[in-house]
Amino acid sequence: MATIAMVYFSGGGHTHLMAEAIASGVRSAGHSPELLRITGEQIHQGRWQDDAIMARLSEADAIVFGSPTYMGGVAAQFKAFIDAASSAWFTQQWKDKIAAGFTHSSSPSGDKQGTLLYLATHAAQHGMVWVGATDMPSQYQGKTDGINRLGSFLGIMGQSTMTMDGSPAAIESGDRLTAELFGQRVAAAVERWSDQKVAVAA
Amino acid sequence: MATIAMVYFSGGGHTHLMAEAIASGVRSAGHSPELLRITGEQIHQGRWQDDAIMARLSEADAIVFGSPTYMGGVAAQFKAFIDAASSAWFTQQWKDKIAAGFTHSSSPSGDKQGTLLYLATHAAQHGMVWVGATDMPSQYQGKTDGINRLGSFLGIMGQSTMTMDGSPAAIESGDRLTAELFGQRVAAAVERWSDQKVAVAA
Amino acid sequence: MATIAMVYFSGGGHTHLMAEAIASGVRSAGHSPELLRITGEQIHQGRWQDDAIMARLSEADAIVFGSPTYMGGVAAQFKAFIDAASSAWFTQQWKDKIAAGFTHSSSPSGDKQGTLLYLATHAAQHGMVWVGATDMPSQYQGKTDGINRLGSFLGIMGQSTMTMDGSPAAIESGDRLTAELFGQRVAAAVERWSDQKVAVAA
Amino acid sequence: MATIAMVYFSGGGHTHLMAEAIASGVRSAGHSPELLRITGEQIHQGRWQDDAIMARLSEADAIVFGSPTYMGGVAAQFKAFIDAASSAWFTQQWKDKIAAGFTHSSSPSGDKQGTLLYLATHAAQHGMVWVGATDMPSQYQGKTDGINRLGSFLGIMGQSTMTMDGSPAAIESGDRLTAELFGQRVAAAVERWSDQKVAVAA
Repeated sequence: MATIAMVYFSGGGHTHLMAEAIASGVRSAGHSPELLRITGEQIHQGRWQDDAIMARLSEADAIVFGSPTYMGGVAAQFKAFIDAASSAWFTQQWKDKIAAGFTHSSSPSGDKQGTLLYLATHAAQHGMVWVGATDMPSQYQGKTDGINRLGSFLGIMGQSTMTMDGSPAAIESGDRLTAELFGQRVAAAVERWSDQKVAVAA
Repeated sequence: MATIAMVYFSGGGHTHLMAEAIASGVRSAGHSPELLRITGEQIHQGRWQDDAIMARLSEADAIVFGSPTYMGGVAAQFKAFIDAASSAWFTQQWKDKIAAGFTHSSSPSGDKQGTLLYLATHAAQHGMVWVGATDMPSQYQGKTDGINRLGSFLGIMGQSTMTMDGSPAAIESGDRLTAELFGQRVAAAVERWSDQKVAVAA
Repeated sequence: MATIAMVYFSGGGHTHLMAEAIASGVRSAGHSPELLRITGEQIHQGRWQDDAIMARLSEADAIVFGSPTYMGGVAAQFKAFIDAASSAWFTQQWKDKIAAGFTHSSSPSGDKQGTLLYLATHAAQHGMVWVGATDMPSQYQGKTDGINRLGSFLGIMGQSTMTMDGSPAAIESGDRLTAELFGQRVAAAVERWSDQKVAVAA
Repeated sequence: MATIAMVYFSGGGHTHLMAEAIASGVRSAGHSPELLRITGEQIHQGRWQDDAIMARLSEADAIVFGSPTYMGGVAAQFKAFIDAASSAWFTQQWKDKIAAGFTHSSSPSGDKQGTLLYLATHAAQHGMVWVGATDMPSQYQGKTDGINRLGSFLGIMGQSTMTMDGSPAAIESGDRLTAELFGQRVAAAVERWSDQKVAVAA
């Protein structure tokens, strides 16, 4: 059984819901998801530190990076984590791990592709192997389940219209389904890459 | 009166409709649009050539670049035009012209941001000044006119679901409106940049 | 006389030296540069705040954004500033200001283009007009002055080999020259855009 | 033994030399490289077609995409190949193959990162798994062998100063070494991904 870590920041809660949906897909594929949430409290004078999170990332078979798209890029809090993780980069500690990415914002395009391009660039610096999304936009086949409804490939995207009424964050059912399938996809890639087949119950 | 050229490729016709809508906005702002369509017929052994188009671009006050997003980037035919226009680059012929960009594809995100990033990169090589879109996604203000419904800023995007039934290309009314306003926006920028105010009829 | 603000983060000091060189170019063009440095001390629990800097940016005619490239993107501290400046975005306070960008890292390519692409994307969200670099790599003309020696167009780049010996930061003379010319370039664009010609002394 | 295809366009010959160096690395790792060169002659009225190349790509275990960076992006001829390969995309024929990329231009940065970002985006649309470069810039360790001297991670880059004297294309020894190691890197990834270990001679 492989361990797949989702390391992410979430401001309003939508990115957190996407992380949970990916985790659900990982679990349904027989592997072990780990949700590691970056918070502002872990940042002091602009620098992020959390040794426990770094230790768990170091042990994970795959790392799925996630952040809302704020002003066209990853949230500053998530970038603080990334900059701090340059300690792992110097020693190429994450080299050859499977990597993947996800993001969320309030409009359909919303410069989210830029966030995924950045996450892939960052993973490449670490020498990681990048696994993208593989579900074609389901509307192309005349389906209405919303799978990959936004048309994203390098990673997955969620989109939810901003509400200002204080109601709890919620994500579209199509985006949740996309995220669950993505969790399964990443798990299958980790199996193949790591030769960690799931034992089939007799 | 300034001349604003739209140079673009269009396969199925959607990008052409967007170019026409931008032209309509340019015209309503009192300036002169010029539609210059790149076609496969202008390409021989992989190389594009059309001296008349190059001459008109050289005289234009602004150039708006447009292409459908095919496989995550500009259409090959449009890239053939861009590569051939390196002749203008060597002598920095387009330097200090206003530049802008637009694209279209069949899904909401669909890697269209990558196309706009590329068009801006290319314009920067020419020493052009880049004018983006400025309309906020209108759904944020509770409006349903569809202005910037996809959430694009570096340039504008259109999205139309693929139809395979042979019906003529059509674009969403929101995307047309977005394109018309973008034409006005580019025209206003050219006025300010070039000091070519439109004479007000008495 | 126009005011051109350089807002930037600098860790080791190289990006600060680039900002100073741009400022020098702005000054030599007869305009007023303003150096606004983002620091980790301005960040609390992951959030940046500095009302004085925001006020000066609001009054500037142009904003030149600068950050080292850390792990393939802007420094987290600079992103914290950008995220906080979404307050200016909501009211489109920087709309129609001239924008430009610069970055620095320790290797020639070093994913610095990604940083410039991001800075341009961010400026477009604000409705700003983007002015790139226009100097061709001088080695193409057989010159050795180092102007645009790295070949960057969307903005300018500096590169200095990392030293671990504690010696003060220094930048290449070619990169300094590139930055000074870029300051003049941005100043000329602001003049043209804002109609703020410099009074010629009699 | 796995088959690793390099599919690339080369104008002046530098990208071809890089493809050959990658092939050499693949061979030294005990696998079978295949050099598939895109040419302008394969393009008619802007459309590329070559059924033999498409058949070989379909059978390859991995595809390494290569193009010079022309005007900030892949060469138009290479984009013509990519657009034509949308036939493979519709049926997700390349899904789960290993993918990688390389590019070349005449200046150190030269917007080459944009080309690699594009190649990775395109591979993601095909559902491929992206393997980047993993060699740290060797100058960081005080070495002068030139391995990853430009600092590229998503794929590899070569840079050669333009010569106009008609002398045959040549690439830097550091870039050749970088390419050979990259060929070995891709081969190792294919082994691990495909479980196609090379038989060790007794």
